[in-house]
Amino acid sequence: MHLSKRLLAELFGTFWLVLGGCGSAVLAAHFDGPVQGLGIGFVGVALAFGLTVLTMAFAIGHISGCHLNPAVSVGLMVAGRFPARDLVPYIVAQLIGATLGAAALACIASGKPGFDLVASGFATNGYDLRSPGHYTMVAAFVCEVVMTAFFLFVILGATDKRAPAGFAPIAIGLCLTLIHLISIPVTNTSVNPARSTGPALFVGGEAISQLWLFWVAPIIGAAIAGVVYPMIAGLREAVAELPARVQA
Amino acid sequence: MHLSKRLLAELFGTFWLVLGGCGSAVLAAHFDGPVQGLGIGFVGVALAFGLTVLTMAFAIGHISGCHLNPAVSVGLMVAGRFPARDLVPYIVAQLIGATLGAAALACIASGKPGFDLVASGFATNGYDLRSPGHYTMVAAFVCEVVMTAFFLFVILGATDKRAPAGFAPIAIGLCLTLIHLISIPVTNTSVNPARSTGPALFVGGEAISQLWLFWVAPIIGAAIAGVVYPMIAGLREAVAELPARVQA
Amino acid sequence: MHLSKRLLAELFGTFWLVLGGCGSAVLAAHFDGPVQGLGIGFVGVALAFGLTVLTMAFAIGHISGCHLNPAVSVGLMVAGRFPARDLVPYIVAQLIGATLGAAALACIASGKPGFDLVASGFATNGYDLRSPGHYTMVAAFVCEVVMTAFFLFVILGATDKRAPAGFAPIAIGLCLTLIHLISIPVTNTSVNPARSTGPALFVGGEAISQLWLFWVAPIIGAAIAGVVYPMIAGLREAVAELPARVQA
Amino acid sequence: MHLSKRLLAELFGTFWLVLGGCGSAVLAAHFDGPVQGLGIGFVGVALAFGLTVLTMAFAIGHISGCHLNPAVSVGLMVAGRFPARDLVPYIVAQLIGATLGAAALACIASGKPGFDLVASGFATNGYDLRSPGHYTMVAAFVCEVVMTAFFLFVILGATDKRAPAGFAPIAIGLCLTLIHLISIPVTNTSVNPARSTGPALFVGGEAISQLWLFWVAPIIGAAIAGVVYPMIAGLREAVAELPARVQA
Repeated sequence: MHLSKRLLAELFGTFWLVLGGCGSAVLAAHFDGPVQGLGIGFVGVALAFGLTVLTMAFAIGHISGCHLNPAVSVGLMVAGRFPARDLVPYIVAQLIGATLGAAALACIASGKPGFDLVASGFATNGYDLRSPGHYTMVAAFVCEVVMTAFFLFVILGATDKRAPAGFAPIAIGLCLTLIHLISIPVTNTSVNPARSTGPALFVGGEAISQLWLFWVAPIIGAAIAGVVYPMIAGLREAVAELPARVQA
Repeated sequence: MHLSKRLLAELFGTFWLVLGGCGSAVLAAHFDGPVQGLGIGFVGVALAFGLTVLTMAFAIGHISGCHLNPAVSVGLMVAGRFPARDLVPYIVAQLIGATLGAAALACIASGKPGFDLVASGFATNGYDLRSPGHYTMVAAFVCEVVMTAFFLFVILGATDKRAPAGFAPIAIGLCLTLIHLISIPVTNTSVNPARSTGPALFVGGEAISQLWLFWVAPIIGAAIAGVVYPMIAGLREAVAELPARVQA
Repeated sequence: MHLSKRLLAELFGTFWLVLGGCGSAVLAAHFDGPVQGLGIGFVGVALAFGLTVLTMAFAIGHISGCHLNPAVSVGLMVAGRFPARDLVPYIVAQLIGATLGAAALACIASGKPGFDLVASGFATNGYDLRSPGHYTMVAAFVCEVVMTAFFLFVILGATDKRAPAGFAPIAIGLCLTLIHLISIPVTNTSVNPARSTGPALFVGGEAISQLWLFWVAPIIGAAIAGVVYPMIAGLREAVAELPARVQA
Repeated sequence: MHLSKRLLAELFGTFWLVLGGCGSAVLAAHFDGPVQGLGIGFVGVALAFGLTVLTMAFAIGHISGCHLNPAVSVGLMVAGRFPARDLVPYIVAQLIGATLGAAALACIASGKPGFDLVASGFATNGYDLRSPGHYTMVAAFVCEVVMTAFFLFVILGATDKRAPAGFAPIAIGLCLTLIHLISIPVTNTSVNPARSTGPALFVGGEAISQLWLFWVAPIIGAAIAGVVYPMIAGLREAVAELPARVQA
C-alpha cells in the first residue's frame, strides 16, 4: 500500500478517534434536561473511545495498521514491527487528523446555545487542578506511563501471529475502553499524544502548558512495552505477519 | 437470492431497528418508579440501536446484505458495491419496515396508562427546539453528514475483502452504538432516513417538517464515504467479495 | 452426544441463566448504600441476561445446542432444526435448571439482613400491576410475542450455515441483551417460559397466576419465526449444519 | 514456551487484572465533582474486570494460557488440562503480580488529595460488615463457590476443542463481567484468591482475617467444575488442544 494512502487512513482514523471519543465527552457525558440521569457518564465515554479504535481497526487495519496514536507508532517501532522511516510521517498525519477532528467537534458543539468551549474543558487532558479528580502531576505521570505500557503490551500480544487471527481490533479497542474506565478521573485519560494535542490547541493556556506530560509519559510507556513484550514472547515469534504485510 | 426474499429481509430488519432502537428510547431510557436511576439512559439506547444492526447483520447479512438504511444503500451504490437497479426497491422495503416497526412500538407503548405518543417525542429526530440539546439546524446538519460518512467508511472498510472475515457485523453494529454515544444530544441521532421517517409519521407536525434534514444530510455523508473509501483503499481491492455474492 | 449429557448441559445452562440474569436484577439492580448511583440498573441487568447466554453458548453449544429456553426449543423444532422427540426432555431439563437456579439465588439473596423475597418481586415477570411500568396484559402479550419472534429469527439466521461460523453465541447473547434493553419496563422481560417459571415458584400468588402469558406468548412468537425464517432464507439452505451435528 | 517466560506473562497479566479491575473500583466507581452521576458504578467496574481478562487472554493466551487466578489454575489441573508440577510456580507468579498491581494502584490513588487507602476499602473482598450489602459469611461462601464453579465451567467449555476457535477470550472475559454484575453487592466479587490477596495486604486488619474465604470458596468451586465439565462433555474430547500446546 502506498505511503500516501496509509497516511490518509491514519488521518481519517485519528479524526474519528478525537471526534468520537472527545465528542462523546463534550456532547453527551452530562446531559441537562427536564429528565435527570440520561447522560452517558464516564462509562459511555470509555465505550466511545474504545469503539473509535475498534471500528477503525476493522476499517483501515488492512491499509495503515490503524495506529491513530504517536505512542503506538513508537511502541511498534521499538518492538521491530514498524519501520523508523515511516514514524514522522505517521505522527504528522495523526496530528493533522486529531486537530481536524477537534475542529469538527468545535463546529458541532458550538451549535448549542450558550456553549463555552474553554469553560467546558473540551475533553483536554490535565493534572493538578486540570485533572478531573485533582490528581498530582506525579500520579498523572505514573498513570499515563503504566496505562500506555499495558496498551502497547496488549497491542503487541493481540497482533502476535500466534494470537487468534482477526480478533485484534476487539482486543485493542476494548483495551482502550478499559483504560478509560480506570483513569478518566486521574488525567481525563490520554495514552495518546495526538488525542491530547488536538483539543488542547482549541483551549490554549494551561491545556497547552501541561501538554508535555501527555507526550512524554505515553511514549515512555509505549517504549517499555516495545522492549518487554518481545522479551517475554520470544523475539522472533512475536514479529507478527500482519504488520510486516502492512509495511510492504 | 431472489429479490423478493432480500426485500423481505430488509423489511424485517428495518422493523427490528426501529422497534428495538426507538423502542429502547421510548420505553426504557427513563423509568419512573419508586426506585430512582434504573432507566437505561443514552448509553442503553446507544447499545440498543447498535445491537439491532449487529444481530440482524448476523441473521440476514447473507440474505440481503443487511442495509436497513437508505443512506447505506446509497453509499454502497456509490462505492460500486450495490447495483443501482435495486436501490429503489430496497429503500421502499426499508420504509415499510420502519413504519411497521414504529406501529408495533406505538401499540406496545400505548399499553402504559397515561402514555402520550406525541408528547413523548416518540424517538423522532429534530433540530433547534426539537433537538434534545437544542442544537441549531447547521450543527445538526454537519453532525449527521459527518456521522453518516464515518458510518459508511467503517461499513466499506469492515466488509473489504482484506478485513478479517466474519467480523463486519460487530464493527458495523458497534459503530452505530458509537455514533449514538456521540450525537443523541444533537439530533437524537438519525444517520438513517428510514429510522427517522417511521416514527415521524406517527408524531406529525414539526417531526415531519424537519424530516428533510434526516434524508439530505445522511445521504450526502454516505455518498462522500462511497467516493473517499475506494480512493484510500484502492478501488479494485475495495470491491469486496461478500456484497458481490449477495447481489447474485 | 448422548441425550443424558445434553440434558445435563441444558440443566446447568438454564440454572446459570436464571441465577445470573435474575440474580443481577435481585442483588445488584439497585444498591442502597452511603454512596448513591452504584447499582447496575436495567442496563446492567440486560447485559447480565445476554452474557449468561453468550457464555453458555460458547461453553455448551457444542454439547446441547444451548437452548436454555422452551420457546427456543419449540422454534428450532418448527424450523426443522430440532427433533420433536427431544422436545419434552429438553423442556423438563430447562425447568429443573431454572428452578434450581432460582433456589440458589434465594439462598444467596436471603443472606442480606432484611431481605424479603416476595416483596422484592424476585425478578418475576408480570403485567398490569405486576409490570414494572404497569403495562396492560395486551401490551405485554404483544411485546412478548414480537420479542421472542425476533429472538428466534436472529437465532435461526446466526446459526444458518451461510452466516459467519463461530459468531452465533455473540449474536444470540447480545440479542437477548437488546430485548431486555427494550422490554424490561413492559414485562420485566421473559421471552423464556423456564426463566419465568423458576422465580415464580418461589413468589407464588399472582406471579403464578400470570405465568400462562409467559408460556403462551413466547411459544407463539418462536413458532412464527420458525415458519418465517425458512421462507425468507430458503428452506434447504437454512437448515444449518451445526444443529444437525448437535442432534447426532 | 519456557516456564520463566510463562511465569512472567502470568505476573504481568495478574498485575493488569488487579490494577485495572480494582483500579476502576477505587478511582472511578464513584466520582465526586460539580456534576453528579459521572462515576462508572458497578456496571463500569464489572466491565473493567472482564476486560482485563479479555485483553490479556488475547495478549498472552498463547504464552501462558492466561490463568491470572489460582482458582483457574487449580480447576484446569483438576480437569487434566494443566500439569500439577506448574501449579505452585503459577500461583506464586500470580500473587506477586497481584501485589505489585495493588502497589501501583496505591501509588496512583494516593495522588488524589485526601485519599485514605484503608477507609476507601481499596476494593478488598469481604463478608458481614465488610460485604458491600452486608451479606452473611454463609451467603458469601455459597456465592463465591457457585460463581467460581460456573466461571471454570465456561473456561473449560469455551476452550474445548469443539468450541469455535479464537473466541475463548471473549467468552471468558465477559463471563467475569457477568459474575461481577451479579455479585459485587455480596462479596465485592472475588472468584480469584490472588485478586483478593493483593489489595488486602495494603489494607490489613479484617481484610486479612477474612481472606481465608476468598481462597477456600473459589478453589472449591473451581475444583467442582474441573470434575463436572469433563463428565458432561466427554472426558477425552474435553481435553482441548490449546492448553496442551501451551504446556509444551
